[in-house]
Amino acid sequence: MTLILTLLGKGGTGCTTLAIAAAKAYAEQGKAVLLLSQDSSPALGLMLGCELGVEPQQLSSNLWVQSLKTTHLLEKSWEQLKEMEQQYLRSPFFRSVYGQELGVLPGMDRALALNYLRELSQSQTYDVILYDGLASQDTLRMLAMPDILGWYTRRFRQVFGDSDLGKTLLPFVQPVASAVLAVNWSDETLSEPTQKANNLLEQGRDAVADPSQVLAYLVTTAEPIAQATAHYLWGAAQQVGLTVGGVLVNQGHDAAALGDRFAPLPLSVIPAVSGEGLVNHWSTLQQALPEFCADPSVPRSLTVDEALNQIKLFLPGFDKKQVKLTQYGPEITIEAGDQRRNIFLPPSLAGQAVTGAKFADSHLILSFA
Amino acid sequence: MTLILTLLGKGGTGCTTLAIAAAKAYAEQGKAVLLLSQDSSPALGLMLGCELGVEPQQLSSNLWVQSLKTTHLLEKSWEQLKEMEQQYLRSPFFRSVYGQELGVLPGMDRALALNYLRELSQSQTYDVILYDGLASQDTLRMLAMPDILGWYTRRFRQVFGDSDLGKTLLPFVQPVASAVLAVNWSDETLSEPTQKANNLLEQGRDAVADPSQVLAYLVTTAEPIAQATAHYLWGAAQQVGLTVGGVLVNQGHDAAALGDRFAPLPLSVIPAVSGEGLVNHWSTLQQALPEFCADPSVPRSLTVDEALNQIKLFLPGFDKKQVKLTQYGPEITIEAGDQRRNIFLPPSLAGQAVTGAKFADSHLILSFA
Repeated sequence: MTLILTLLGKGGTGCTTLAIAAAKAYAEQGKAVLLLSQDSSPALGLMLGCELGVEPQQLSSNLWVQSLKTTHLLEKSWEQLKEMEQQYLRSPFFRSVYGQELGVLPGMDRALALNYLRELSQSQTYDVILYDGLASQDTLRMLAMPDILGWYTRRFRQVFGDSDLGKTLLPFVQPVASAVLAVNWSDETLSEPTQKANNLLEQGRDAVADPSQVLAYLVTTAEPIAQATAHYLWGAAQQVGLTVGGVLVNQGHDAAALGDRFAPLPLSVIPAVSGEGLVNHWSTLQQALPEFCADPSVPRSLTVDEALNQIKLFLPGFDKKQVKLTQYGPEITIEAGDQRRNIFLPPSLAGQAVTGAKFADSHLILSFA
Repeated sequence: MTLILTLLGKGGTGCTTLAIAAAKAYAEQGKAVLLLSQDSSPALGLMLGCELGVEPQQLSSNLWVQSLKTTHLLEKSWEQLKEMEQQYLRSPFFRSVYGQELGVLPGMDRALALNYLRELSQSQTYDVILYDGLASQDTLRMLAMPDILGWYTRRFRQVFGDSDLGKTLLPFVQPVASAVLAVNWSDETLSEPTQKANNLLEQGRDAVADPSQVLAYLVTTAEPIAQATAHYLWGAAQQVGLTVGGVLVNQGHDAAALGDRFAPLPLSVIPAVSGEGLVNHWSTLQQALPEFCADPSVPRSLTVDEALNQIKLFLPGFDKKQVKLTQYGPEITIEAGDQRRNIFLPPSLAGQAVTGAKFADSHLILSFA
């Protein structure tokens, strides 16, 4: 099993430095580690004293490093798409467009990075992957993708099926499909890729919710704005179903400056070092790092209490007026931290309307009749 | 005319602080200024000492501030989409889905921010908008969007028209269109929205290339990694056709530490301040800021020399082996800085193959027969 670990915090609080230190620490414990950076600039190479290529590059015993190039990942994915269309389309279309021509649009960076993380995780080449994002809010968007894409698929398939538009188009499906597809529309060969795509989204969502597969730690300094940002990211991570294991208090002397703001998360104080390239500074940082794991005393992002007919959402850092709730049909939408989470009600609550909502003890508690 | 100004630099070098200072400086000059932040965390509110809503909020005379909420922008855009489908579709489909349900996928943040910037710019409510991105590489992706979306539209329309797939689908277009559309397929009413979308992309691309509409400044400290990142972003900005006006050397004493790395960009040294919330510190920063403008001595990102049959691309910070060139049909693709730029050849060079490419003086020079 590969663990994907990511550090969330305000820019400039040392996320990249601590990700390097964590990668080194894991490698020294004998784990195979990949440090994967979303940053395409030369910054990481300079911090590590080496030039980075588009493939993982060995830095020391057990430690590999890679700087993601979206243009490169896009070319590889384009080739895969071409192979798929060759399999299913009567006359391939995408083959006339070359992967080397394709420009990068917003969103491609994280979508392709997530797909790459999935491939790496599946191949089990590494025990640990340290993913160093460019901005923590975008890392959360990336990890929310399987859940949210799953929602869009579910919702729009249902709406389309029920709609006049769907019914109007239905007579055309068969003739268009048989003109275009190399296989039978009703054939099993077609349900396979659809099912596969749905499975990938489900597996992705389950992986993000499983702290032995994906785990985040917060990074902050004692500085109030850095603390507030880390606190906000803690709540925002819950909206993605991501487990936050603890807080790294960087450049700190003691954890007292943070009070009990992050309770019950364990805090680790990381001393200030300067001249980060020096070997003894890395080892100072490494020694101050905790053993990264999920703390069982931290509430889960979603708990269903079937006995009380309640759903409890852990939303640290938010208050009642920062959280919006809407219910359409079988799903409930929770909005907080500029992210929406759609919750499919468990069978015991399906079809029931929310009858009460209160905010207590960092939890949104929804009651059903 | 509204000027959109953005600061590009490594995280933690002070881009947000200097964006605030620049916004204050413009406001004191009597310009109507909006400070627009991509950050949805409470950080900016804390720096400014106020709580930010989803609409621009007045901070002081001439100065408004807004923190972008993608969930809110998504709802507004969804309503616009519904209005459009009502106009063109026989039986509306999207109306059954509520904007409040929609989750945020990677890419939506910047796509919606760009659309909002376009609306603001068109309404001419502000003289200056300070756009403070979450990560500079994502700001560049956002600004590249009109150009790259334009390319995708152009390329795929042509490929589709020429393809067997396009020809196979052609007989179905008329019956499907008349079943679904409220207007005639061949009607002028339909060419209007298509033309409008193309115009928007062209206007967007032209705005990004026009330094009186969109302008960037680099931010760095004297620290080598911050310098290298700023240098990289300078080159990457050229790939987007964005004008970089100068460099802000933050927390500096003099500009000597940077040498001539950024020549011919003008450098402005910004003194180190601490306790950023204090009024006199803001004024120290404001006084150190330059008058933001494009320096005429800085080369343009693309120059066509019709006499010599040459195209010159300004690519500071890259060397020959970091730049890739491909040519398919009438377009040339330049890859550098994890971004691809597709260049449509001017009429005088159309249909000609690149016969020579050399790298000299931070320029890629392409020769044609």
